Amino acid sequence: MTDQPTFVLVRPQMGENIGAAARAMLNFGLARMRLVDPRDGWPSPKAVAMASGAAGRVLDHAGVFATTSDAVGDAAFVFATTARGRDLTKPIVTPERAMEQARALIASGQKVAFLFGPERTGLENDDIALANAIISIPVNPEFPSLNLAQAVLLCAYEWRRQGSDTPPEVLALGRTERASALEVRHLADHYEERLDAAGFFFPDTKAEGMKLNLRNLWSRMPLTRADVQTLHGALRQLLRRRD
Amino acid sequence: MTDQPTFVLVRPQMGENIGAAARAMLNFGLARMRLVDPRDGWPSPKAVAMASGAAGRVLDHAGVFATTSDAVGDAAFVFATTARGRDLTKPIVTPERAMEQARALIASGQKVAFLFGPERTGLENDDIALANAIISIPVNPEFPSLNLAQAVLLCAYEWRRQGSDTPPEVLALGRTERASALEVRHLADHYEERLDAAGFFFPDTKAEGMKLNLRNLWSRMPLTRADVQTLHGALRQLLRRRD
Repeated sequence: MTDQPTFVLVRPQMGENIGAAARAMLNFGLARMRLVDPRDGWPSPKAVAMASGAAGRVLDHAGVFATTSDAVGDAAFVFATTARGRDLTKPIVTPERAMEQARALIASGQKVAFLFGPERTGLENDDIALANAIISIPVNPEFPSLNLAQAVLLCAYEWRRQGSDTPPEVLALGRTERASALEVRHLADHYEERLDAAGFFFPDTKAEGMKLNLRNLWSRMPLTRADVQTLHGALRQLLRRRD
Repeated sequence: MTDQPTFVLVRPQMGENIGAAARAMLNFGLARMRLVDPRDGWPSPKAVAMASGAAGRVLDHAGVFATTSDAVGDAAFVFATTARGRDLTKPIVTPERAMEQARALIASGQKVAFLFGPERTGLENDDIALANAIISIPVNPEFPSLNLAQAVLLCAYEWRRQGSDTPPEVLALGRTERASALEVRHLADHYEERLDAAGFFFPDTKAEGMKLNLRNLWSRMPLTRADVQTLHGALRQLLRRRD
């Protein structure tokens, strides 16, 4: 857990939003939440109800602090999420860059905190003065409204996306395996023989090209062994019914 | 608008969730929504209320279709978002890879659709059979619950993240400019002179090292011209009060 950033909700108003933020964090494996002066007090039954499975793993361990300064006291680097970056003299980073930096800092043993402001008003100047950098989520400038839990969700997603060892693409094979080149060749042979006998490759001058196209078609398909058996069977059945 | 993917909500149950999905799309600049057989009919006042500013720009143009097959009829490539990828024989891709592929397809003039299933049950086998690939969001396997609007939000974010020309990091300067090296040198000189006069560089054997450290401190700071003026003024004032 110490190899994670801390997400600090500054003066959150509604318990439901704290709960939704806890869920969004845990969806992407983050569990270190801190709260600064939650408006409706703490603990919050509404937060627990909304957090469901994240209540025990996030909310129950959330630290509550009187001021933002107290909540980030142990952090070597503080990011603030705010839509009001333009009149500030701070580095403004994408969530992507922020999480790259956070991962590097945390890997070197330093603590990193992310500030999220109250629902309506966002972070105040005194909160932002504590931040080393500002995160700007690349929203549509004509429709930038993100709620608290959405901002938390996107930051948590970025954290996990960069750390994920999920391969970007796998071919799921269910209960079967990918067909071998030999199996695909036998399938291609089977179809070619039967189509030849049926007079498909006509006229003769085009036959070679048509056969080549068909072989390329088969090899381009991501066929499993089960697919190959299905296609053999389908061809046999077509001919059986015709005869 | 044709250079965008289409997000298809399949048999969505609650109007509020359709509205929230529309907002999430427009937050990241997407406006092409299609609906398959929404449970509570269409149009939906609850969807409009939740969508707020996205009602006119997304919901009013949403096409409504009787079947998923009809809704993706014009798409050259269909992605399905589902948590049930493991027993399928399809490529399973991260949102990141999916949006890379979608951008390439759309850039070559092809239409791309993304399927999102109903709130409780997700996509059915017949829906998934229409998909060319499955998107798997890299959630915490111990707490994978994402709601419909969250899945839409993350996919829309990935689309925009990859297309964004936002620089990953900028130093916002408010109404001022970054100080020049000469201005920083004058500032360093000013402090060094006054600190020297005050007897700060002691003992003599360490003075050169201390001065070097201080010069490195100044150059490491991302100072603006206004910062430099502030620091000159602060030093002058300290000395004025002392004298």
